[in-house]
Amino acid sequence: MDSVESFPALRLTQEDGSEISAAVAREFPLTIILNDQELVTLLCSPADLRYLAAGFLASEGFLDSKDEIRKITVDDRRGVVRLETTEDKGLAADALLKRVISSGCGRGASFYNAADAASQKVDSQMEISVDEVFALVNKFQHGSKLYLATHGVHSAALCDRKNILVFNEDIGRHNAIDKIFGKCLLEDIPTASRIIITSGRITSEVLHKVAKRGIPIIISISESTNLGVRIADTLGITLVASVRGKKMNIYTGSWRIAHDGKAEKRLQ
Amino acid sequence: MDSVESFPALRLTQEDGSEISAAVAREFPLTIILNDQELVTLLCSPADLRYLAAGFLASEGFLDSKDEIRKITVDDRRGVVRLETTEDKGLAADALLKRVISSGCGRGASFYNAADAASQKVDSQMEISVDEVFALVNKFQHGSKLYLATHGVHSAALCDRKNILVFNEDIGRHNAIDKIFGKCLLEDIPTASRIIITSGRITSEVLHKVAKRGIPIIISISESTNLGVRIADTLGITLVASVRGKKMNIYTGSWRIAHDGKAEKRLQ
Repeated sequence: MDSVESFPALRLTQEDGSEISAAVAREFPLTIILNDQELVTLLCSPADLRYLAAGFLASEGFLDSKDEIRKITVDDRRGVVRLETTEDKGLAADALLKRVISSGCGRGASFYNAADAASQKVDSQMEISVDEVFALVNKFQHGSKLYLATHGVHSAALCDRKNILVFNEDIGRHNAIDKIFGKCLLEDIPTASRIIITSGRITSEVLHKVAKRGIPIIISISESTNLGVRIADTLGITLVASVRGKKMNIYTGSWRIAHDGKAEKRLQ
Repeated sequence: MDSVESFPALRLTQEDGSEISAAVAREFPLTIILNDQELVTLLCSPADLRYLAAGFLASEGFLDSKDEIRKITVDDRRGVVRLETTEDKGLAADALLKRVISSGCGRGASFYNAADAASQKVDSQMEISVDEVFALVNKFQHGSKLYLATHGVHSAALCDRKNILVFNEDIGRHNAIDKIFGKCLLEDIPTASRIIITSGRITSEVLHKVAKRGIPIIISISESTNLGVRIADTLGITLVASVRGKKMNIYTGSWRIAHDGKAEKRLQ
């Protein structure tokens, strides 16, 4: 299904008016059924549903590796992904139930606490230069055809120091990141010592997703919340936010960015 | 609690670097307990928690009027709002359970379907001119001190044709709207035949919140999804999106905006 739908719209300015065809991001309900148990319905962009389901299940702790998957069936007309695992994780499903009850517009506090306890400190020695960050973000911002068409989606990318390796986009900023990690899981793409770039704000939930994959550096075009900064600090993750117009704010782990010595010199 | 927390950050450009104190939006877990039953934990900005709890409960169908509230207790240190109603709505709580299970980053499809069936067509004859829309949006964009400080929150406002009547902001776009409606409910501020302006994208869930309050016109600085457009069309709501730089897209109900006849003339 196309991720865009066009509608007739009246485009008005103070002086003028015209009828246009406006491209709008499609909002699609996807139900994920794990071992015959209906887990969740996500509102998402209707592309790469297999990646989204696998990534969501991995982020939520239902799936650790591709080997645990017996079968995935995608019904992209009805909006259902069925996933069967080699072991039944009924207990984990109860945990999701508990977590999702304590969630509203974002995910809830009990999720945050549980995940916080589970996340290990990232100890990668990876470094990247300031110029490499700007070059990656520039590539990233030109990557989203769906954003350029609709201005209504978020993007995310997995990168090494020079290149965008996996790119995806979704109406939900969490979904875009889950699609990245779902593809990595299903196609055996390593995530440790790599970089995540996101167009969306960095919140506690995003930090936990990224920490679970061993990612040492997260870069956002937007801002971070205070919990984003605190969790990045606790888990040893480098958090770069507000990357716009050749400026960036480094909140935590700046040694991974300033490795070329230039920044330290400037600050002396 | 302050909605902003400051962190030391390294501000880097390609040529320069400096240590700054960066203001970041606070992300706060608020648990809502309805008649001794823990319903949900929202991640929100820690202000106007009473409005957020009342607005959320009204949006979710647990509360229709102020008269139903026996007591509200806010513990803003622990992040708990307890609300007691005159009638125990245990059945409704089961319905939320069902709905929230089918939700992830947004709200889920079963919520969407249930609310869709429940929402009545808005039949207000309210009209507003193009110039009034631009003037309101201009006021709106200068209203958020928290956004100007952090660039990390969404704003929402209830307006009449000339003035912003109620304004609020939150890290979550749904929460900002619920804070508006919560204040209206607790302080007897009418919402019918008034306008909602939001900084956030318009999705199916936002449309349903607005339809429940009898709002005939919704205006967004950002874009709408396709379900936003479809639901606005079905419920007779005027949807104006992408209001930026003296331009706007009217997707549905354009008769409420073009009432001065100028737009029709331009289109002939």
